[in-house]
Amino acid sequence: MTKINISFNPGPSQLYFTVEDHIRKALREGIPSISHRSKTFIGIHQSCISGLRQLLNVPDNFGIYFTGSATEIWERIIENLVDQNSTHFINGDFSQKIYDIALELGKKSESIVKPAGQGFEIQDLEYKNQTELIAITHNETSTGVSFEMAHINYLRDKFPNTLIAVDAVSSLPYPDFDFKHIDSLYFSVQKGFGLPAGLGVWIANERCLEKAHQLKSKGLNIGSYHNLPSLHQFYLKHQTPETPNVLAIYLLDKVIQDMLRRGIHIIRKETEYKAAVLYAVLEKSKKISPAVSTANKRSKTVIVAHCANYTSDLRQYLEDYGMQAGEGYGSRKTEQLRFANFPAHSKEQFEALADYIEAWETK
Amino acid sequence: MTKINISFNPGPSQLYFTVEDHIRKALREGIPSISHRSKTFIGIHQSCISGLRQLLNVPDNFGIYFTGSATEIWERIIENLVDQNSTHFINGDFSQKIYDIALELGKKSESIVKPAGQGFEIQDLEYKNQTELIAITHNETSTGVSFEMAHINYLRDKFPNTLIAVDAVSSLPYPDFDFKHIDSLYFSVQKGFGLPAGLGVWIANERCLEKAHQLKSKGLNIGSYHNLPSLHQFYLKHQTPETPNVLAIYLLDKVIQDMLRRGIHIIRKETEYKAAVLYAVLEKSKKISPAVSTANKRSKTVIVAHCANYTSDLRQYLEDYGMQAGEGYGSRKTEQLRFANFPAHSKEQFEALADYIEAWETK
Repeated sequence: MTKINISFNPGPSQLYFTVEDHIRKALREGIPSISHRSKTFIGIHQSCISGLRQLLNVPDNFGIYFTGSATEIWERIIENLVDQNSTHFINGDFSQKIYDIALELGKKSESIVKPAGQGFEIQDLEYKNQTELIAITHNETSTGVSFEMAHINYLRDKFPNTLIAVDAVSSLPYPDFDFKHIDSLYFSVQKGFGLPAGLGVWIANERCLEKAHQLKSKGLNIGSYHNLPSLHQFYLKHQTPETPNVLAIYLLDKVIQDMLRRGIHIIRKETEYKAAVLYAVLEKSKKISPAVSTANKRSKTVIVAHCANYTSDLRQYLEDYGMQAGEGYGSRKTEQLRFANFPAHSKEQFEALADYIEAWETK
Repeated sequence: MTKINISFNPGPSQLYFTVEDHIRKALREGIPSISHRSKTFIGIHQSCISGLRQLLNVPDNFGIYFTGSATEIWERIIENLVDQNSTHFINGDFSQKIYDIALELGKKSESIVKPAGQGFEIQDLEYKNQTELIAITHNETSTGVSFEMAHINYLRDKFPNTLIAVDAVSSLPYPDFDFKHIDSLYFSVQKGFGLPAGLGVWIANERCLEKAHQLKSKGLNIGSYHNLPSLHQFYLKHQTPETPNVLAIYLLDKVIQDMLRRGIHIIRKETEYKAAVLYAVLEKSKKISPAVSTANKRSKTVIVAHCANYTSDLRQYLEDYGMQAGEGYGSRKTEQLRFANFPAHSKEQFEALADYIEAWETK
């Protein structure tokens, strides 16, 4: 079997270039054995938070909290920010999942649904019901559709008193969010940050915290150690309520410092360049095509190819050259391939991927 | 500053001897980039569960589930196994914490409290109130007091219809539980298993699962992705509901295989030997003493020394020789030291520790 040199799986994905070195350093420094109440840990936490703030331009009125996964954040958002109702924009499996959690937790939530692969248009935002929370999936990992920034801003203007929570699990650190237009943003580290899985990052402002306090005082179950007030209380001390995934926080800090040195502007430009290279090949191809038909809805970070009967042939061809494509999600496994375009994927790797697809086309 | 060669911190603690090698192997094999829905992951999960079952002698009517931490398991136990009331044996900070979570989640829980450092006597078990769940802390990490196995069995006989959940966070894999007398057992990996923090392991039988289903059908919030029915559904497929800490599950599997090769019987004998060595020195000392006065209540895995005014002097002395003692917990920081006695701590290290304490005594 061919050794896989590069994984284009959308997550867990390719490790960021520097991660292995950082792991070796962590072992030399005894990081896995430090106490999560020690000064060393507090220093790591502080550096990680301040780095994230700088990288993503997070204002001071937002706290940054660690959880076990982004799936956990879905649950915590519904428990802490929703009393009765929330509104969900659904166009794939992941935007569906947080909605399902809301229903499971007994909320009267509503959904605005588009078929998988389609994005939302401005007229889809014209709903009238009162809602406490709008849940947006910036990058639908299952289909490769992106939610437009302009639409987020539009929703904020239209519903100024509603909390807006954005799932950017498979797009950060690429997108440049304007935090004035959102109240919460979250991701997990095994995608764009190129780390081993096992850590979610939840960014939330003072409006979210206030809402959680309100719900708690009404007697709702907002969770315990990881409810927003508890997370915030420990966050202020640069600690976490539980013994966290210390190694992952250490590695996230290190990778963020690497990204800051490289420059977020360069990472964003390269992401756009790599996406353009791959989409160009998909558009030119006579065998395969971009799965998302509307160009301005196409994700820059999870690029989905509609491959129909060619799916397994192309997948195998790439694998023979050491390139592991991600399978299509769920029912689209046999007709699509997904290509993660994260900071861990170099320009050269994307150029090679495009070349190999072109070579496959004419083989 | 002296390099710390060995950490006796009760957790996160010293890594198990083989962990660094396993991490290097995981990186070579690309484990952090594998999909959590892949055959490779399913194989790792399967091996880990079956190894744990063998190591701890877990019967087939118990499922084994992964969470982010043992703190998370406290919350999940209260949400999934308690409708109205639970009973908590409290004799330190960690047995207190799950009780606090029960109250925070609105349960009418009761507590049977002993001062820190004291264990429970048979007459303490003679309470009469009906209760749905008895929460026992097998090893109170904050004080070094152990809950006697015979008392667990006594409680089971007395309350056959009550669920019994045992926190063995800082004692496993040492204790040999009889699963006929308990319904749930849990731990986290950064203590006796000598792994980096970020994974909790929750073992629960079919009575727990049934109770969770009951509470859910009554409309209680039992959580979503990590409620017991959801955990169980994925467990049956050798998967997890969310993207888990894949690397930690891989490492846990590897360490369990190492422990099985070494033999759990040998690990248990060595634990008892090492505990005897250290307790003998503490008993003989004129300056310091075992913090737990009753010998049969003393933990074998977290050995606490009452050091009073000598605390910082002894701590510094050991540190100069590369041995990091754990601080006393909370308010006992200035008067106690804690020494973890886990499988990662060798007989030689414990003998050296005892020698150094004796040398310090007469310096």
